[in-house]
Amino acid sequence: MSKEVKPVSMSMHPLGGRTEVTSDQEPLCVFGTGDMGRSLGQRLLQTGYKVTYGSRRPHGCGPVPQGAQVMSYADAAHSANVVFVCVHREHYGFMEKLASQLKGKVLVDVSNNPEQNLYPEANAAYLQKLLPGSHVVKAFNTLSAWAIQNGPADACRQVYLCGNDAEAKQAVSEVATKMGLTVLDRGSLSSAQELEDFPLQLFPEWKLPLQIAVALTAFFFFYVLIRDVVYAYVVQGKDISFRIMVSLANKVFPIVSLIMLALCYLPGVMAAFLQLYRGTKYKRFPNWLDRWMLCRKQLGLLALAFAFLHVLYTLVIPIRYYVRFKTWEYVITQIKENQTIKFDTTVAWRTDSYYSVGILGFALYLLLGITSLPSVSNALSWREFSFVQSKLGHVTLFLCTLHTYLYGWDRFLRASTYKWYTPPGFMLSLVVPSVVLGLKLLLLLPCVDRRVTRIRRGWERKEHDEEKTLLT
Amino acid sequence: MSKEVKPVSMSMHPLGGRTEVTSDQEPLCVFGTGDMGRSLGQRLLQTGYKVTYGSRRPHGCGPVPQGAQVMSYADAAHSANVVFVCVHREHYGFMEKLASQLKGKVLVDVSNNPEQNLYPEANAAYLQKLLPGSHVVKAFNTLSAWAIQNGPADACRQVYLCGNDAEAKQAVSEVATKMGLTVLDRGSLSSAQELEDFPLQLFPEWKLPLQIAVALTAFFFFYVLIRDVVYAYVVQGKDISFRIMVSLANKVFPIVSLIMLALCYLPGVMAAFLQLYRGTKYKRFPNWLDRWMLCRKQLGLLALAFAFLHVLYTLVIPIRYYVRFKTWEYVITQIKENQTIKFDTTVAWRTDSYYSVGILGFALYLLLGITSLPSVSNALSWREFSFVQSKLGHVTLFLCTLHTYLYGWDRFLRASTYKWYTPPGFMLSLVVPSVVLGLKLLLLLPCVDRRVTRIRRGWERKEHDEEKTLLT
Amino acid sequence: MSKEVKPVSMSMHPLGGRTEVTSDQEPLCVFGTGDMGRSLGQRLLQTGYKVTYGSRRPHGCGPVPQGAQVMSYADAAHSANVVFVCVHREHYGFMEKLASQLKGKVLVDVSNNPEQNLYPEANAAYLQKLLPGSHVVKAFNTLSAWAIQNGPADACRQVYLCGNDAEAKQAVSEVATKMGLTVLDRGSLSSAQELEDFPLQLFPEWKLPLQIAVALTAFFFFYVLIRDVVYAYVVQGKDISFRIMVSLANKVFPIVSLIMLALCYLPGVMAAFLQLYRGTKYKRFPNWLDRWMLCRKQLGLLALAFAFLHVLYTLVIPIRYYVRFKTWEYVITQIKENQTIKFDTTVAWRTDSYYSVGILGFALYLLLGITSLPSVSNALSWREFSFVQSKLGHVTLFLCTLHTYLYGWDRFLRASTYKWYTPPGFMLSLVVPSVVLGLKLLLLLPCVDRRVTRIRRGWERKEHDEEKTLLT
Repeated sequence: MSKEVKPVSMSMHPLGGRTEVTSDQEPLCVFGTGDMGRSLGQRLLQTGYKVTYGSRRPHGCGPVPQGAQVMSYADAAHSANVVFVCVHREHYGFMEKLASQLKGKVLVDVSNNPEQNLYPEANAAYLQKLLPGSHVVKAFNTLSAWAIQNGPADACRQVYLCGNDAEAKQAVSEVATKMGLTVLDRGSLSSAQELEDFPLQLFPEWKLPLQIAVALTAFFFFYVLIRDVVYAYVVQGKDISFRIMVSLANKVFPIVSLIMLALCYLPGVMAAFLQLYRGTKYKRFPNWLDRWMLCRKQLGLLALAFAFLHVLYTLVIPIRYYVRFKTWEYVITQIKENQTIKFDTTVAWRTDSYYSVGILGFALYLLLGITSLPSVSNALSWREFSFVQSKLGHVTLFLCTLHTYLYGWDRFLRASTYKWYTPPGFMLSLVVPSVVLGLKLLLLLPCVDRRVTRIRRGWERKEHDEEKTLLT
Repeated sequence: MSKEVKPVSMSMHPLGGRTEVTSDQEPLCVFGTGDMGRSLGQRLLQTGYKVTYGSRRPHGCGPVPQGAQVMSYADAAHSANVVFVCVHREHYGFMEKLASQLKGKVLVDVSNNPEQNLYPEANAAYLQKLLPGSHVVKAFNTLSAWAIQNGPADACRQVYLCGNDAEAKQAVSEVATKMGLTVLDRGSLSSAQELEDFPLQLFPEWKLPLQIAVALTAFFFFYVLIRDVVYAYVVQGKDISFRIMVSLANKVFPIVSLIMLALCYLPGVMAAFLQLYRGTKYKRFPNWLDRWMLCRKQLGLLALAFAFLHVLYTLVIPIRYYVRFKTWEYVITQIKENQTIKFDTTVAWRTDSYYSVGILGFALYLLLGITSLPSVSNALSWREFSFVQSKLGHVTLFLCTLHTYLYGWDRFLRASTYKWYTPPGFMLSLVVPSVVLGLKLLLLLPCVDRRVTRIRRGWERKEHDEEKTLLT
Repeated sequence: MSKEVKPVSMSMHPLGGRTEVTSDQEPLCVFGTGDMGRSLGQRLLQTGYKVTYGSRRPHGCGPVPQGAQVMSYADAAHSANVVFVCVHREHYGFMEKLASQLKGKVLVDVSNNPEQNLYPEANAAYLQKLLPGSHVVKAFNTLSAWAIQNGPADACRQVYLCGNDAEAKQAVSEVATKMGLTVLDRGSLSSAQELEDFPLQLFPEWKLPLQIAVALTAFFFFYVLIRDVVYAYVVQGKDISFRIMVSLANKVFPIVSLIMLALCYLPGVMAAFLQLYRGTKYKRFPNWLDRWMLCRKQLGLLALAFAFLHVLYTLVIPIRYYVRFKTWEYVITQIKENQTIKFDTTVAWRTDSYYSVGILGFALYLLLGITSLPSVSNALSWREFSFVQSKLGHVTLFLCTLHTYLYGWDRFLRASTYKWYTPPGFMLSLVVPSVVLGLKLLLLLPCVDRRVTRIRRGWERKEHDEEKTLLT
């Protein structure tokens, strides 16, 4: 154990490959010899820094990376300009006593909490309050342990930082750049909360859309199950439960996809009508509408996933045993009963249109999906982005709705369609998209469109003046 | 109305959640209380700044966000170091009179014009000329109104800025970073034109490729329509118009796709021959060739979209009513006429090769498409990028051309192929790719390749020396 | 020739469009009038700089871009603060004599070597050693010749730079920004080697995965060829060689895909067991395991490519001549022999489940692929990334393995399956995934999982203390 604590005048880097050992290595200080402190210190050593650990018990603190020194907190703080605080928030208290030694120094807060909203303020803001004379910079907390220990890998090259002092941020930024990381400045310390929440989050913006998707899938699965499998069993006494795996799935997926695509465009249409009604764009939307609008992208992408499944399930149809059996059976029956089948041009037109419209809709849909990839949407101007997502988006919705109407065709009017007096699933799926397209059509009327455009450019109806003053 | 104009010593942020109200808020000034000024000011207030509006009529300027002060232009300019100019270019004139108050201040030009090329110079450059003593920075104009009003959303985190003064840019950059935006420096004020054109553009680089795609699609649609549907109607008296929806589409799409893929590689081959002929790489290509080369990526991606449609239209074949009908009819006829069908190994080899080559070509093609995503191509070294786009690209073109030749097979020699003495569409589609592949093969000959490589490394043929002096 | 060498007091830009010719153009110096010096100088002129070339023979150095001056090295160095060194490394020697003129200047090393590891140190580091009084910055070497000559195109906007002096880097960064490039700081000069290796590399991290893919494909192709085609020829005297193109390909691709997907998750499982055995996470993994873990992404993406081919080859089945022939033949035989075919619900369940599981597996697989796009993975927190790649990844592996087991079904027990006493290819492909899933299941046992989690948080088993001191 004594090996680590003895001062190492000549640094050794048993692991690093390219490290240059120069005599004027910049000294850095690390508070805490736990996992984070140890991993970070090791990386800093490998990057070519001189690392000094600050510890409560310099002579009994457990192993530190070879090449590093261990001192008391005060001595360690004295040795360097930048101090990495690798201590849990609960233990920050001890630093108050070091306020004079830490005065003017850069304190890098790398801490994360086990869960969100544990404390009223961000760890870094708390540290800054404890030590108003130091310059706290929040950084490195969004990196994975792997990236800190083994160096930046593919997905972990970015380090976010924030802090109130520009020079302090610059100092930390230089250390990060030397470690091979790409620095993204996130502004002042008020962003620390956001940075501390980041590593804890698990797709927060996907939660609502996923819940909707699951709920719709569950509902329509049971709806279709009852109308198809249970009905066949009860009324016709046939067991067609095997159809669950492909046929039923291929009914549920397109239904959910269409509804979710429509739900993705419904809030935009509602917002436009709300603005028309209010005569101003400066009034905030109700919270539920705001929340809905913020998850449109996720709704759309989930709908695309369901559409993709629908495509695959459809294309697999002709190789299914059941389908091939039905075909053979049909042909054999035709021959045995010596019937002639007649070609129906209308059916050919209808089914081919149905497929064609579906394919075009899906292709446009994929385009929307590709455009929402971060690197693609970043390269678009706002006008281009809104052209694709709004104009092409509504065309996509139109094509997909048309595809479903063509599928229905004359079944809307046939009594046999309504088993147990319920409409088939695809009819239910048409309600929301039809409403959205109808409302959108209204908005496209020249007189309505002109007014919406004016409102969006800042125009306000007069009678709302008093309200406004209360709002903004 | 008086509510807004009274000086607010203690700022209130009715909307913001996390805003910290500190006593030493940095003051910012906004000129103009129109839509842009209002939205931007509101965001700045929410970010924690103290906002002062400059207005012609401080006491009758219309509503401003609560928490902001309104003053005369001169007083407002005096209050802050950074002034956001949210005024239309036509009204810039008034600022000349404020030259002394604005001296040394940072002026942020956020303006956009209603259309491109309206003025001889960029708005920001014009403003700098009006106020040579101030530091003009062009920024925020590429953001959507939504992003400015509601804070950065997914696709709108990037703010481009340019300006001649580094410190002024730094000041604006800090404000943007605090607002949660990512700053991208675009250099000196000479880039302002580019930044002002950006929000107005609607896929400028896609225009030509789209026109080519539409023209080719229209031509081949009518060509195939006449040869198939009209011919059948006129010569055989049959109405097969229903074939338009899928069969014809699936003839037109692959034809257009193949031609556009070839058009994507033709300019590169032509450029190489031009360099060979001229004996230098320092001579500029003719403008049309330059323009063509710059839209290769878009040509290729459109061709990929058509190829994708071709794949879907092909995979949908076996579930089509028409196809299933034909199959049943065929089998029933065979049985009734008691014929035996015989398996032809050559046909099996040919058709399976045809499918296999097509699938491999499409897969490679998708790879090219994925590699051209901004985030992927950014991660590639130039050598890797050119390996994929050039080497793999030509292999893709070869596979797709081979796929088409295998489709044609012995139809090239059958007289019945040439209805009304015209070749079928797929034969026409083979012309350009065959030429491109032929020329590329020539370029791969060792003696030619060596010379091209030398020229690309800077070597020049002697007799061109005089010309060069006139060129570079 | 004299045209270029005469001092040009008034700069002319025959090519540039928007260049502003101001009287106070910043002067830059370029050493070397070769291809790189010429291209770079031309761009700098177009960007609005005043360019002076330094040359051994100022009056006979060959053409330089119009508007530039040519002087002796010493005079040229004197004229500017930033010097672009466009000279091959072998010729760096002459600059030693200019040490006094170059003192304090920024030297931009743009050089590349013809191959990797040619010299013991990076060119830029060597230059810095030759001229310790100058500030060497490595930059521009990763750009393509095209981008340097014609300005930044789509894929070539990024310029990496590194250097020991922050101000020098800032100066070069400003030039690059003015040229329209995006600058990425890569830290100190010790990163120069990395930057110099970058343009030479050709998918180094894909090498091993590609070798594995090719080896597996070759092995299974011959294995399946012998069991199918050769066996049929030898034992049954039938020539079914045409099946190579689609049927055999569609046996080999899924096999390779499944094995590679499993290989992608095997090292993670092995690493966990190794950490369990060692009782610490601070001990480095053996080199082969480290290397394996670093290419998991590439293994996974290649496996996805094979899965994609498998999907296309499967969907093309029903339009194949061979398959349609078999169907007709089957139906005709049934009728002639007057047999009745009976529907088997178990077969329907099994085959439909088989397809359904395969489709879901493929969809999840695609999701994994999309998540590994740089721009998508950058937007994920580490927790989200590991959720997708680890949790969803193992579910994908499970679904794909289940898909294969369902394919096998009762063939495992049939003797006829084992032609020439060999198991069919798909059975071999099940070995690795089954092992991985089995081990993963073990790791999910609460008692094991708890211990792994503790180790990954930094806990260590006591008896390893001595070892550790030797390791870190």
